[in-house]
Amino acid sequence: MRDWRVVLAGLALALLCGGSGWAAYEDNPAAPCLACHETVTPGIVHQWEQSKHSKVNIKCYICHKAKEGDPSGYEHNGFYITAVPSPKYCESCHPAEVEQNARSKHAWGAFLGPLKPYYKAARDKGLDPMSQETAAKLDPERMAKTTVSPLFPDSSILKKIGLLDNADYNHNNVNLGCMECHGSFIRVGKNGQLDGWPNAGVGRINPDGSLGSCTYCHPRHTFSVAEARKPETCGQCHLGPDHPQHEIYEESKHGNIYAASGEEWNWDVPPGQWGPRDIVAPTCATCHMSGFGGAVETTHDVGDRLYWELQPKKSVPQWKGPEEVDFVLERIPDEKKAAAGRQKMKTVCYQCHSRQWADNYFDEFDQVVSDYNMLWDYTDGLLQQAYEEGLISKDLPLDETPEIMHYLVWHHDGRRWRMGASMMGPDWTHWNGAVDAIMNKLGTMINDIEMRRRLKELED
Amino acid sequence: MRDWRVVLAGLALALLCGGSGWAAYEDNPAAPCLACHETVTPGIVHQWEQSKHSKVNIKCYICHKAKEGDPSGYEHNGFYITAVPSPKYCESCHPAEVEQNARSKHAWGAFLGPLKPYYKAARDKGLDPMSQETAAKLDPERMAKTTVSPLFPDSSILKKIGLLDNADYNHNNVNLGCMECHGSFIRVGKNGQLDGWPNAGVGRINPDGSLGSCTYCHPRHTFSVAEARKPETCGQCHLGPDHPQHEIYEESKHGNIYAASGEEWNWDVPPGQWGPRDIVAPTCATCHMSGFGGAVETTHDVGDRLYWELQPKKSVPQWKGPEEVDFVLERIPDEKKAAAGRQKMKTVCYQCHSRQWADNYFDEFDQVVSDYNMLWDYTDGLLQQAYEEGLISKDLPLDETPEIMHYLVWHHDGRRWRMGASMMGPDWTHWNGAVDAIMNKLGTMINDIEMRRRLKELED
Amino acid sequence: MRDWRVVLAGLALALLCGGSGWAAYEDNPAAPCLACHETVTPGIVHQWEQSKHSKVNIKCYICHKAKEGDPSGYEHNGFYITAVPSPKYCESCHPAEVEQNARSKHAWGAFLGPLKPYYKAARDKGLDPMSQETAAKLDPERMAKTTVSPLFPDSSILKKIGLLDNADYNHNNVNLGCMECHGSFIRVGKNGQLDGWPNAGVGRINPDGSLGSCTYCHPRHTFSVAEARKPETCGQCHLGPDHPQHEIYEESKHGNIYAASGEEWNWDVPPGQWGPRDIVAPTCATCHMSGFGGAVETTHDVGDRLYWELQPKKSVPQWKGPEEVDFVLERIPDEKKAAAGRQKMKTVCYQCHSRQWADNYFDEFDQVVSDYNMLWDYTDGLLQQAYEEGLISKDLPLDETPEIMHYLVWHHDGRRWRMGASMMGPDWTHWNGAVDAIMNKLGTMINDIEMRRRLKELED
Repeated sequence: MRDWRVVLAGLALALLCGGSGWAAYEDNPAAPCLACHETVTPGIVHQWEQSKHSKVNIKCYICHKAKEGDPSGYEHNGFYITAVPSPKYCESCHPAEVEQNARSKHAWGAFLGPLKPYYKAARDKGLDPMSQETAAKLDPERMAKTTVSPLFPDSSILKKIGLLDNADYNHNNVNLGCMECHGSFIRVGKNGQLDGWPNAGVGRINPDGSLGSCTYCHPRHTFSVAEARKPETCGQCHLGPDHPQHEIYEESKHGNIYAASGEEWNWDVPPGQWGPRDIVAPTCATCHMSGFGGAVETTHDVGDRLYWELQPKKSVPQWKGPEEVDFVLERIPDEKKAAAGRQKMKTVCYQCHSRQWADNYFDEFDQVVSDYNMLWDYTDGLLQQAYEEGLISKDLPLDETPEIMHYLVWHHDGRRWRMGASMMGPDWTHWNGAVDAIMNKLGTMINDIEMRRRLKELED
Repeated sequence: MRDWRVVLAGLALALLCGGSGWAAYEDNPAAPCLACHETVTPGIVHQWEQSKHSKVNIKCYICHKAKEGDPSGYEHNGFYITAVPSPKYCESCHPAEVEQNARSKHAWGAFLGPLKPYYKAARDKGLDPMSQETAAKLDPERMAKTTVSPLFPDSSILKKIGLLDNADYNHNNVNLGCMECHGSFIRVGKNGQLDGWPNAGVGRINPDGSLGSCTYCHPRHTFSVAEARKPETCGQCHLGPDHPQHEIYEESKHGNIYAASGEEWNWDVPPGQWGPRDIVAPTCATCHMSGFGGAVETTHDVGDRLYWELQPKKSVPQWKGPEEVDFVLERIPDEKKAAAGRQKMKTVCYQCHSRQWADNYFDEFDQVVSDYNMLWDYTDGLLQQAYEEGLISKDLPLDETPEIMHYLVWHHDGRRWRMGASMMGPDWTHWNGAVDAIMNKLGTMINDIEMRRRLKELED
Repeated sequence: MRDWRVVLAGLALALLCGGSGWAAYEDNPAAPCLACHETVTPGIVHQWEQSKHSKVNIKCYICHKAKEGDPSGYEHNGFYITAVPSPKYCESCHPAEVEQNARSKHAWGAFLGPLKPYYKAARDKGLDPMSQETAAKLDPERMAKTTVSPLFPDSSILKKIGLLDNADYNHNNVNLGCMECHGSFIRVGKNGQLDGWPNAGVGRINPDGSLGSCTYCHPRHTFSVAEARKPETCGQCHLGPDHPQHEIYEESKHGNIYAASGEEWNWDVPPGQWGPRDIVAPTCATCHMSGFGGAVETTHDVGDRLYWELQPKKSVPQWKGPEEVDFVLERIPDEKKAAAGRQKMKTVCYQCHSRQWADNYFDEFDQVVSDYNMLWDYTDGLLQQAYEEGLISKDLPLDETPEIMHYLVWHHDGRRWRMGASMMGPDWTHWNGAVDAIMNKLGTMINDIEMRRRLKELED
């Protein structure tokens, strides 16, 4: 369903790139690449041929020619290339998108997650956490694999049974679990040999010191905007027990309509113009990123239209971003920014829903967030009481049943409860959210503590 | 894939509506609506343009002009409209569908579920449960949010820890969980202000006293029959831990074939004619509602072709319907009705399967239902025994581990077990059904009771 | 998206079949079949009309004419037919596929699973496990339904509470659960009456003594190669708590790309030629079975490209196949065969990924398998210790909490952990895999054992 807007956008892209990447194209030796790679890796050649890049003459070497100073550069049959084009490489043609993404939680996903222990250690020592040298000194991967912390919820039991400190145990679900989404620290060895790779996590620390990976949502080598607009792309990470946004969307009326008729919508409309006349229901990208026909500003800062932080133990308005504070270490709610974010989101809602409809819904959602926060206070207090009564020990943070239930009330069920409510997924709000948190996890915690209390009384 | 049948049906619809809605169209001020709404809510204008309604001149005011006596009517820029067109509004053009739906469990979904405490209270007092006045007196939403009952399985623990009676606790997963599917009671304030809204649950109590919401399965404003025929539409509610019909369908061979080739089928064929020449495998609507090429009568009473009630603690043949008894309060199995229902279902099966094939399958299914019923008897007896031994208390119905397991054996695993078998989803019959019920939940119940017994003996 | 390759393949098929099935067509009374079945079972007639079979004149009686000596043959309106065409029937036109499948774990799926007790008993007695006579003597279905074994994980509790030995209890989740995927033993009564049917499980024991069911992946009566190439077809069995390959694929980038753009790919290309120019990302069939444009040999032996056995309690290299040993009873790892399998798989990867990329990924995966194996050793040791301390009893293998957790660490979570890593599904590697195994199941096991130890000390 291509239309004139697609053609115009192609022209615009060609003009935009004229200043930078386009110049580089003049000495673009595409033919030699294809000559081998049509045989060696025909899949990626075929993908690229289908891409808009191929239509506007963005060939291999424009993106893969290693920039000066990029440690990942190496000689490859007479060309100096990198296997890891970072956002800095995409920036020449897509500057606004790269800039927006750089201040998003996406780009900081590794440091906000599994590489937080490393980030903190680097900052404590006054070192640059993005540099290859710091990584060589502190070994971020090893730090993630051996730290006892709820960040790695299997680490307490692994410590208890001796595997965390066993040199033969790789704890490699950290690599193929956590870091596949959050991103790894890619370190460079000799001749382009890469450590912590393959990895395309959204918060990847690239050899050139930049953060993030554009290819995570625009998969190589088609780099299709249509793909990035489809919910399955977001669902690669936003799914599962602790943040099932994809499943919530699938359950919502929005997701039903997408599943039932999405294949007939216009997916290739240029950014900013893609709007209510092209689709019948929104996808993730519509509400959180797209301009929706000009109603709002397009953004690649995925948290830009949100009020609540829904992932922490207790929900607060959106934190100040990395352009204001070191938000890996300092989490400062910013009520004003959050309110502005919600206003943008509502503007998207209003394109299809009445003001009363949308405003009422957000009120209902806020009530759910408040409920969760109250339940969390109770749960947290109960854990402290169990410590004080000596029913459980603080030795390891996550090895005794009450500790594990306390964790799950927050990290799994409590997120589903809030996130389900945010996007109209009733089963996630109720069964997999509130009921799982309250009846199953808090219920188990209460019963377990009572049992421990009776045992202790008998023993005393 | 439109064909002559679609064209004919359009003409027929136009003629049918000539008697009622069509007359209203003569003074239909569509243009003024669009003049604003093309800018204010472009999404819904675009949806309507794509609808069959727009093709046969069913414009905004035909459906949104408030009927006399509808409390939700209000002045809106010179027009007297409602934001909540109920089934009574759809009835002028779709009388059979509305009548069939009105006696289905769908239409009574709120009263059979979260609004049952209110319904019972109203009936006890001799009040009309559908009226705005009764709702003003009894406050159905508040009643749902503060009643301790297995209907709200988090209510026991919430009561125990003091949140259920805490005025600051909203218990709002009742609204954004239960009622999003079951439906809310929509109460009307001043100037069209609505309480309990937005809500489009199948059993919604509308301001005009009618039950249900056509838009739940025919989402506004395309109201597409194709969408309603796709399994994702049913899957908006029929999914999750307690009735995963959508997941079961996805696992079944029927669902596999739909996923692999459904995009090539004929989805727009008129009701009654849609049949085995249009599709390669059935969807939910095919077996439960459609005429399947004339093999059976089309119906909007979704239970019409069923033998078993699969959701209660113990399975029985289908209950007598609301046209015979007050089935919210009186649940009377009707063996004859159930047998007739199964015969209709088998007739659908026979369009693609041999009689031996289909009959054998139903025999296998009945054996599974019988198994579950026997297991439930045991589980229920075990709970009563634990009460009698004084191992647990009857104070709250759902706060101690054996009570919670007993509930899950029925409400979650036991439904999956039976429903999985009804629709050829082996993982749901076995792993998420029988094995979860027997090994995991009953197993936990047995182990927990044994632990309590040993503790009690030590304490005594 | 048909192309010349499809046309050529049709011609080739017609020529291939000229030797056997084609001859049979000469006396093929298709018209009489359709005359009735267009009315009696219009669905299957429509399906066949859409099939490639109908295009090359493979009509009903070619496949349904009972072979001499097939016990399932019976008179049907003057024709001698079978309702269960087995792989022996498909073999005339598809000999290589049938031969490859016959030595796969697919074909042996019933004997490797729920019918293992029967298979062992037959072999112990020197009887042919595939024969109708042996089945009449030993009753494989009854054996599966009454054996206490972790193969039937609900059997221990059912034994404990008296239902396993209760003649009224059908234990029929064995039929509609286990055997729907693994396959049943189809026994023949009078006049073509079939017992253990309907069933189309991959490892079905057919009346003619052959193993397997081609229609499971090529659903009748379209028998479409396109359908078999789509992941949902594999997902009919490869899903759920104990081997969620379909869910893992859906989460992987491969699955994302398929979901976002698969509807535009070429699905009808003939076997062997279907390759990287037809699709943008691989499906299950691409990596495990297809020739991928000639890069490797096409195969219907689904384990042919694998290194690890990921389903056993402890992972080992692929077992020797049934062409070498009786692999139902003897499971002999074959390092050489496994290494050759991996090399084939890597060859597929290399069509789109660099050697460094793919080789590194397999190294990461191997580390995960090693981790799981170490964790399993610990878990298994812990169970033995609990037996030795007298904290639990060996009476029934799967009725006490530590036994159930021990089982789940292996059979559910431990498989997800390994399988998630094998196919780039981070949530399955981490949350539903390692974390569920270590924090939730092993954690519960440790806590439960500690509680039992304290109770026992008080009692002693």
